[in-house]
Amino acid sequence: MRSIIPDYLADALFRVEPDTSGQPAQYIPELAGADPERLAAVVATIDGEVYGAGDSDAEFTIQSISKPFVYALALADRGFDTVLDKVGVEPSGEAFNEVSLEHDTGRPLNPMINAGALTVQSLIGPWNSEPAERGERVRQGLSAFAGRELTIDERVSSSEMDTAHRNLAIAHMLRSRDVLTEDPRTVVEGYVRQCAVLVTARDLAMMAATLANRGVNPLTNEQVVSGAVVRYVLSVMFTCGMYDAAGDWATQVGIPAKSGVGGGLIGALPGQVGIATFSPRLDEHGHSVRGVSLFERFSSDMGLHVMEIPSAASSVVRSNQVQDGERGATRVLRLQGGIRFAGAERIIRDAEEIEVDEARVVFDLSLVYSLDAVARRLLLEITRRLTDGDQEVYFVDPQGILAHTDVGAAVVVDELEGAVG
Amino acid sequence: MRSIIPDYLADALFRVEPDTSGQPAQYIPELAGADPERLAAVVATIDGEVYGAGDSDAEFTIQSISKPFVYALALADRGFDTVLDKVGVEPSGEAFNEVSLEHDTGRPLNPMINAGALTVQSLIGPWNSEPAERGERVRQGLSAFAGRELTIDERVSSSEMDTAHRNLAIAHMLRSRDVLTEDPRTVVEGYVRQCAVLVTARDLAMMAATLANRGVNPLTNEQVVSGAVVRYVLSVMFTCGMYDAAGDWATQVGIPAKSGVGGGLIGALPGQVGIATFSPRLDEHGHSVRGVSLFERFSSDMGLHVMEIPSAASSVVRSNQVQDGERGATRVLRLQGGIRFAGAERIIRDAEEIEVDEARVVFDLSLVYSLDAVARRLLLEITRRLTDGDQEVYFVDPQGILAHTDVGAAVVVDELEGAVG
Amino acid sequence: MRSIIPDYLADALFRVEPDTSGQPAQYIPELAGADPERLAAVVATIDGEVYGAGDSDAEFTIQSISKPFVYALALADRGFDTVLDKVGVEPSGEAFNEVSLEHDTGRPLNPMINAGALTVQSLIGPWNSEPAERGERVRQGLSAFAGRELTIDERVSSSEMDTAHRNLAIAHMLRSRDVLTEDPRTVVEGYVRQCAVLVTARDLAMMAATLANRGVNPLTNEQVVSGAVVRYVLSVMFTCGMYDAAGDWATQVGIPAKSGVGGGLIGALPGQVGIATFSPRLDEHGHSVRGVSLFERFSSDMGLHVMEIPSAASSVVRSNQVQDGERGATRVLRLQGGIRFAGAERIIRDAEEIEVDEARVVFDLSLVYSLDAVARRLLLEITRRLTDGDQEVYFVDPQGILAHTDVGAAVVVDELEGAVG
Amino acid sequence: MRSIIPDYLADALFRVEPDTSGQPAQYIPELAGADPERLAAVVATIDGEVYGAGDSDAEFTIQSISKPFVYALALADRGFDTVLDKVGVEPSGEAFNEVSLEHDTGRPLNPMINAGALTVQSLIGPWNSEPAERGERVRQGLSAFAGRELTIDERVSSSEMDTAHRNLAIAHMLRSRDVLTEDPRTVVEGYVRQCAVLVTARDLAMMAATLANRGVNPLTNEQVVSGAVVRYVLSVMFTCGMYDAAGDWATQVGIPAKSGVGGGLIGALPGQVGIATFSPRLDEHGHSVRGVSLFERFSSDMGLHVMEIPSAASSVVRSNQVQDGERGATRVLRLQGGIRFAGAERIIRDAEEIEVDEARVVFDLSLVYSLDAVARRLLLEITRRLTDGDQEVYFVDPQGILAHTDVGAAVVVDELEGAVG
Repeated sequence: MRSIIPDYLADALFRVEPDTSGQPAQYIPELAGADPERLAAVVATIDGEVYGAGDSDAEFTIQSISKPFVYALALADRGFDTVLDKVGVEPSGEAFNEVSLEHDTGRPLNPMINAGALTVQSLIGPWNSEPAERGERVRQGLSAFAGRELTIDERVSSSEMDTAHRNLAIAHMLRSRDVLTEDPRTVVEGYVRQCAVLVTARDLAMMAATLANRGVNPLTNEQVVSGAVVRYVLSVMFTCGMYDAAGDWATQVGIPAKSGVGGGLIGALPGQVGIATFSPRLDEHGHSVRGVSLFERFSSDMGLHVMEIPSAASSVVRSNQVQDGERGATRVLRLQGGIRFAGAERIIRDAEEIEVDEARVVFDLSLVYSLDAVARRLLLEITRRLTDGDQEVYFVDPQGILAHTDVGAAVVVDELEGAVG
Repeated sequence: MRSIIPDYLADALFRVEPDTSGQPAQYIPELAGADPERLAAVVATIDGEVYGAGDSDAEFTIQSISKPFVYALALADRGFDTVLDKVGVEPSGEAFNEVSLEHDTGRPLNPMINAGALTVQSLIGPWNSEPAERGERVRQGLSAFAGRELTIDERVSSSEMDTAHRNLAIAHMLRSRDVLTEDPRTVVEGYVRQCAVLVTARDLAMMAATLANRGVNPLTNEQVVSGAVVRYVLSVMFTCGMYDAAGDWATQVGIPAKSGVGGGLIGALPGQVGIATFSPRLDEHGHSVRGVSLFERFSSDMGLHVMEIPSAASSVVRSNQVQDGERGATRVLRLQGGIRFAGAERIIRDAEEIEVDEARVVFDLSLVYSLDAVARRLLLEITRRLTDGDQEVYFVDPQGILAHTDVGAAVVVDELEGAVG
Repeated sequence: MRSIIPDYLADALFRVEPDTSGQPAQYIPELAGADPERLAAVVATIDGEVYGAGDSDAEFTIQSISKPFVYALALADRGFDTVLDKVGVEPSGEAFNEVSLEHDTGRPLNPMINAGALTVQSLIGPWNSEPAERGERVRQGLSAFAGRELTIDERVSSSEMDTAHRNLAIAHMLRSRDVLTEDPRTVVEGYVRQCAVLVTARDLAMMAATLANRGVNPLTNEQVVSGAVVRYVLSVMFTCGMYDAAGDWATQVGIPAKSGVGGGLIGALPGQVGIATFSPRLDEHGHSVRGVSLFERFSSDMGLHVMEIPSAASSVVRSNQVQDGERGATRVLRLQGGIRFAGAERIIRDAEEIEVDEARVVFDLSLVYSLDAVARRLLLEITRRLTDGDQEVYFVDPQGILAHTDVGAAVVVDELEGAVG
Repeated sequence: MRSIIPDYLADALFRVEPDTSGQPAQYIPELAGADPERLAAVVATIDGEVYGAGDSDAEFTIQSISKPFVYALALADRGFDTVLDKVGVEPSGEAFNEVSLEHDTGRPLNPMINAGALTVQSLIGPWNSEPAERGERVRQGLSAFAGRELTIDERVSSSEMDTAHRNLAIAHMLRSRDVLTEDPRTVVEGYVRQCAVLVTARDLAMMAATLANRGVNPLTNEQVVSGAVVRYVLSVMFTCGMYDAAGDWATQVGIPAKSGVGGGLIGALPGQVGIATFSPRLDEHGHSVRGVSLFERFSSDMGLHVMEIPSAASSVVRSNQVQDGERGATRVLRLQGGIRFAGAERIIRDAEEIEVDEARVVFDLSLVYSLDAVARRLLLEITRRLTDGDQEVYFVDPQGILAHTDVGAAVVVDELEGAVG
């Protein structure tokens, strides 16, 4: 059986594609010259499954999406107190490039605005690291989040340095307040290189999934940063990640997120998935226009809002076996627990093993205690595809989980015996 | 068996009690004269269980804690578009009484600051409601959240009106920008009455639990507002509820919350619990000093951070039966799903039914697929109390959920048969 | 011979008349309905000559032009310290209706913005005056500046009160900061009445001329406020009178000025003239469009810029000669012109040439037409030093310039002959 | 006779000497190490007399006192439009080192704050000047104002560059807004060198006197900048020169002024004197503590406030008589003093008495010692009207006040006898 999720993603891309509003970032030729039609969406689960659609493997520069990850590295390298002493965690309500320092201390308000990100640059690696060491720590740390070796686009990096006046302004201001204690130009260079790390939408989804998975990369199983660091970073992404549109995003989309002027946009739903989109045309806040549309769609379709009532997302499929019966092979999937999007995704994946010659498919819901609307919709879509292919589908539902649900051509029974016949 | 949670709460109060920093709100005599030693903490689950410690039933005025609830009522009464057209959802990074209007539109930045709350006051009830109708709608709506009839402290209300200059200033400013279209004084009077609604910490916990329970009051089962409204309100509480300390709160505590100058503080953890504390001494942000301490403790002890990986919180106890065996009565609790704080609380409650003459207690973990640290700690505490009372405790743990856990005097077996003997 | 100045004024009106840009203030019907074609310019000299052109006698409401005059009355009634304690004198760089309070004290930044003018309203008359007394003091004080009884347009006054939300907002804010200590609505009512005083361009020119004439009304010769108050008020008009266009005005026009939304605009050139224009169409700063054009023209055509270098003071000593007379050598210094500090310094320098054996020193003041306090002091100090050295000092003072001055051991005579004997 | 003024200055220094509050600027060692007891006051008249007391010849760095002079040079070199296009003239109400750019254009609010002064640095000399040329233009221009060759303290200059982070921040910000179009570091270096020009209090007083004298250095008689430029610069000094204390200064002292962190403070009273003080201890606004005290004293003692009403102009017409002569009636107006607009108006008024049958009109200018451009124009207009009416007009002008003036059909003679014939 072909998976539903790639189809869903392809459909989502198809729907946002006509929107050609906004334009690529203009401030350096390398970004201004980006192909504005590039479009991708990738979803990575916390157990390492990756679904992509569109230009998922096109490389672009990570830009500000590096901020939460480098912040996580700094928290890991120097500890909470050292970093908090230099950079706050309050939303600024201002654009990404506002100076926004605390009046009394000179601390940048948060690490998602440039002033904060520049300060974080100086807090990477062991105390007193050389700029080159720090640069390598950043590249290697971002690679660990992505689960593969990332490289730097030197052309973008040097091109951005030529127009880095505002960042230099901010860095000198930080230096004048003793928030930075080293050469401002060196810090800006480090930051510009950090922004020029080349990633694909696939990489970004995996980086986000690493955050969603308590800091453990789902592919390499490397614990990149601790769970405590991740919790902190996700909170800051939620309140500050989308700059002056943070409140709109928090209410409408509800996923800790971060965008970059390169056209990337990521979201990390704790315990469930990492998501990334790529489309270079930006709105007036500097966020990818189609990216924002895609996330609004994902949040609504998949119930991925952190303020949505949570439920579990692992071991939903208790067993997945084929039994030979009188009327041929019967596939039995025993499900359990509370099922939301991520759980449904796992079921879909298991369902892919179903062969066309298996005459009957049984979903045993006896141990399922909740099934949200999205999971229900996905389950019924599996059913539809199977019954369209002339396979029989049975739900074992002694608790009436499916009550009031139109199950189409499927059959609902009370006991497993009634289904496997 | 006596429940663990009241003990936990009493201990928490004991620990914060020595902190006498801060002082009650001074701007009206009725608040300034509050007994500063009053102290309470209440936890209400989404299925209606309430645990209280301290002065849980002492009445005080709700003050700003009314804001998210009245905002929810306005969203319900007038719809998202009408309300958003008048009040934004962006964090202001400013104190509660700053004017903070959007420069171009005059919209208050969010409904948690006074400018927003005053505007929300004018959006209650059907279009063109009379002030008295609106006032009754507010009182009745807040009562529905609390699950009992609330009343208004008329003395506080008229006393606050005498010193409402700043709110009058804000209301006249809103009127001059046509955000308010009616008499500013009437709006302020409505708001002052809303703030003077009398509540107990128990009421507040139940109101918060109603938010945590998708808008359904756990006691009355009334759907006070829709789940969509709740999701919106929780998001705004998370990003704006603690004013200029919102970012610190989001990272450290991570619970959508709201404080009032009367000394109350609430938190609503979606799908799990509502929490309320009461202690009149305030810090420089206007938040209850001990309340903040208590919440930091709760968040850390109970793993109640929204960016903590979520899991389910219902039907954790699949069955709870007594079997008569050779060696006397045996209590069998069959557990299931992912168990976090709220699930463990449910187990504790079931465990209270255990009689001292039941010689053996069996916890069947066969269907449990996760058990977080807090749940584990609570389960072992039940065990300790039972074995201290000379009851035998068995864990059926075929999946090794308890591996590496010191279970004390309890016995771990692989199959239920081995436990019930 | 027909006078040149009326021709000049008529020509100036003719040149600005085609400019129909801007529009009358819209916020109350009475102002919005003003005839936008009304146009007048009046120049009043400090000795009471008045030249008018256009609608010089059309009545309109004074509006914000009342601010410097009522500020002057408050300084006169309550003293500098009391008033400065409540209202600052710093330019705000903001529009007239911004709140602009000092962060720490709550003081309005200056008395030309509404926040300041409202506060000044509460500082009129004796301490603890009744509102009605204050209102009469304002009307009578403005009348004294104008040199005739002014009345209030009650229709405009009550109409403005209906839309005074922003001023009420500001007044309540001031009340909440204890800058105002009485009922905010009463203060706003007083201010709105102050703004509704009916004046003509002729009145305004005379009011400005009173400022230009050290506070003495040129027609009635009444000393309305002291010279010290006038100096203060003119300084504040220069730095703050034109709100956020104050700097442009100070450089381009260079005349202490104030505009009102009724279409009036005044300028007071110290020691020379008062000027007023009237034309209701306003620019985006709230200043009369044609009024600003007229003032730019006047400043340039008439050399009326306070930073224009005044006439040289080098020829104050017309001659310095020694004559041999019967009683020995006599030094004669013939002085001329208006003598201030720099002129007195020149006299001192010449006086250094006086030898001790010159028995008599004569200062001939016949051609001196003014001698300010500093110059007078310095001249008497020279006299003292000379008479202490036993030299005789004579003043020739046919015009009585030294009347009421204690000249010590010197002799005052009417004619040079009487001095050189 | 010994002069009074040095005694006065010495006494003034004696009175402020006990005030040891404040401290020298700390941000660079060279300033922090200044001898805090250094104290000087110098008054320079516009005809070149210089009175000094204290350490009048001690050298220190000019710092921000260079701003108005370099601004004057830029206006002279590039014209008003070019400079105004880049730097505004509005008071900022903020400290000297605030960024204070206009939100929409990025223009610094005024040339007295650092953002403005940095921008002015880039507007010196011909378009596209090399940094070295600009540096030399600044040094030479400041020297021209001082009337002697000034040099640069290279040690202070390089020391300041080490701590110029805030200025670099501002310059990069200006570069990012395209207000600066060249390398920000080069501009800051130029500015830092400008600030490191070595001056004495005597130099500063002479520089201020050059401003007070329409741009002509009283010693060298060099016209350094035009009178129009001076008028502009003095206005900006008055409204913006003392930063966030500008309003207090304007009201209390009333002299266009500028201070520097090196301890210098200058004031220029148009048409009278230039004043400078030197004392390194600074107040919280960055102004010399004793310098401010001295200026308050000078302003009050010497009547040096620009809003002080200048000497009356009422006696400009000394007499107005008709004499019968051989050739019919002759009208004789004897004029006196310095005549500006208001004086000319008085003459016009007297001239209205002239009857058409008075064959000859004589204006006796013997006692007039100055006649400004406007007064000259008005006098000639009277003449034109009279001669057009076939009346003869004579000017008695023994001092050559009308030299180089086209008097039309009028006759200029040396003595009254020649006119009344």
